[in-house]
Amino acid sequence: MRWPRRSSTFRASDGALAIAISGTGTSGMETAVATLARPGARALVVVTGYFGDRLCQMLQRYGATVARVETEWGRACDPSAVERALESQGADVVAMVHADTSTGVLNPVDEVCGIAARHGALTIVDAVTSLGAHPVDVGAWGADIVYSCTQKGLGAPSGLAPIVFSARAGGHAGGSHSFYFDIALLEDYWVRRKYHHTISAPLIYALREALVAVCEEGLEARWQRHHEQHLALAAGLDTMGLSLLPPAAERLWSLNAVVVPNGVDEAAVRKRLLAEFNIEIGAGLGPLAGRIWRVGLMGWGSTATNVLLFLTALKRVLHV
Amino acid sequence: MRWPRRSSTFRASDGALAIAISGTGTSGMETAVATLARPGARALVVVTGYFGDRLCQMLQRYGATVARVETEWGRACDPSAVERALESQGADVVAMVHADTSTGVLNPVDEVCGIAARHGALTIVDAVTSLGAHPVDVGAWGADIVYSCTQKGLGAPSGLAPIVFSARAGGHAGGSHSFYFDIALLEDYWVRRKYHHTISAPLIYALREALVAVCEEGLEARWQRHHEQHLALAAGLDTMGLSLLPPAAERLWSLNAVVVPNGVDEAAVRKRLLAEFNIEIGAGLGPLAGRIWRVGLMGWGSTATNVLLFLTALKRVLHV
Repeated sequence: MRWPRRSSTFRASDGALAIAISGTGTSGMETAVATLARPGARALVVVTGYFGDRLCQMLQRYGATVARVETEWGRACDPSAVERALESQGADVVAMVHADTSTGVLNPVDEVCGIAARHGALTIVDAVTSLGAHPVDVGAWGADIVYSCTQKGLGAPSGLAPIVFSARAGGHAGGSHSFYFDIALLEDYWVRRKYHHTISAPLIYALREALVAVCEEGLEARWQRHHEQHLALAAGLDTMGLSLLPPAAERLWSLNAVVVPNGVDEAAVRKRLLAEFNIEIGAGLGPLAGRIWRVGLMGWGSTATNVLLFLTALKRVLHV
Repeated sequence: MRWPRRSSTFRASDGALAIAISGTGTSGMETAVATLARPGARALVVVTGYFGDRLCQMLQRYGATVARVETEWGRACDPSAVERALESQGADVVAMVHADTSTGVLNPVDEVCGIAARHGALTIVDAVTSLGAHPVDVGAWGADIVYSCTQKGLGAPSGLAPIVFSARAGGHAGGSHSFYFDIALLEDYWVRRKYHHTISAPLIYALREALVAVCEEGLEARWQRHHEQHLALAAGLDTMGLSLLPPAAERLWSLNAVVVPNGVDEAAVRKRLLAEFNIEIGAGLGPLAGRIWRVGLMGWGSTATNVLLFLTALKRVLHV
């Protein structure tokens, strides 16, 4: 395996190509789409929030016909709904988000990838908010293209998109509409050192160091740490009478969607947390705007100290 | 003007949009192409080397019909050839490279932009090897989209592509095939703070610092420095019996194409310069492979000390 740290962090199969796109997480999404979407291709997209919708938009721009399997925001996708959609209409590509940062929900991508494979479809998985925080097991899933970013679970600066291609996905290289995201040219650049662009050396060194840190901690230990801090946060919120939006079994460890209590000005709370405690949390997006706070615990930020600090600060601001 | 340092470094007109794409110089090229190329659009490309050819490839991927005005490698483009091509076949877009890094040649983009405008064509100018080293005067040229990189004349790390759009080019926003390079979405992100992607904070800070350094030195002083060091290098090479490939009036200051003397093993010279003096110079590309060395003097690297060091090292290696 040529890129041991990148491949092992994704748990990619032998024969997979694991590189980093010179762009942000969204550039990883566009590279995946540019590789598999063609005019006439039929794509089925699992939409559980903001980035599932972005996948649809991007696939359509690249000429694919897109069908959606939608879920209520705040719930995980039901694999049987994907199965039914594939039985009734088929698909060449099935795309999905693993960890939905807009709703705090974890999708069962292992099951969906299995169903897609049985129906002969290639799979794209967005692991932007999961890699380095949640179990990502590309080889066991049998996923074809999985991309992430550097600034979340890996804890490096933003600016690169680690991405892995199965041998099967690699067979679709070439003929991409995009030059910058053409995986055939990128493979020539990374593997055979044929010039394509001038990579950002500082970002590559930073990614390397982040992957070394992942190896030193151990992937399982890292997942465990994220799980424990998520449980600690959920328990602390519970004592304050606050709850998380997704059901317990569907919750992310890296992004916690906290339901805003009735009568509370959610924007004022975020503003005070930032001004008084230097803690920035996210607002709800789309249908969840005003209804949730999004609290990240990822990479080096997922620590007991940060959980306690946040809970104490929130308690102070809410006067509970 | 919203982005004074970026705009003033390009000498862009009021009303221009000056941002930085989250990717390398090639991502700037693809953003320009994605904005102006459409299926059915007619593009005329000035090809004086490797990156003119890349412009053709990219424009074709985005659906444009491409005609080329070619020049012998090592010579600048003749504006009258562009004029004749536009008179005979017209074009919606004229694209060109300002400073050709593959041949060391400076193209008369001011004249070509004027001709294109008179024929109603929009213009794309690649200023990857010129911005911060040679006079770039987007406003006076009347160019529509001009892009560059951060790691050459500006002396910042690689990873961003500064780019400027005239108000006229901005009118072509929307409908791009690419999501990542869609200037309508990027303008919303930069100007109206609507989320598009997560920019690389360290690269933005580095670019800002590089532009501050440009302002402190002064653009004209910076151009003068590059010009003087180029002349010093050319004079030193001349005393060693070596010559530059382009005629004197067509030479770049930032990239010097040195003709390899007969009987000299050009690769061995590059290898020894690197091993013994830690100086890396470039090989010739395409038809110039084996025929030239490419010696960069750009950004903070364009100094009298570096010129002397290089000349002394080359003299030692060549035994002249």
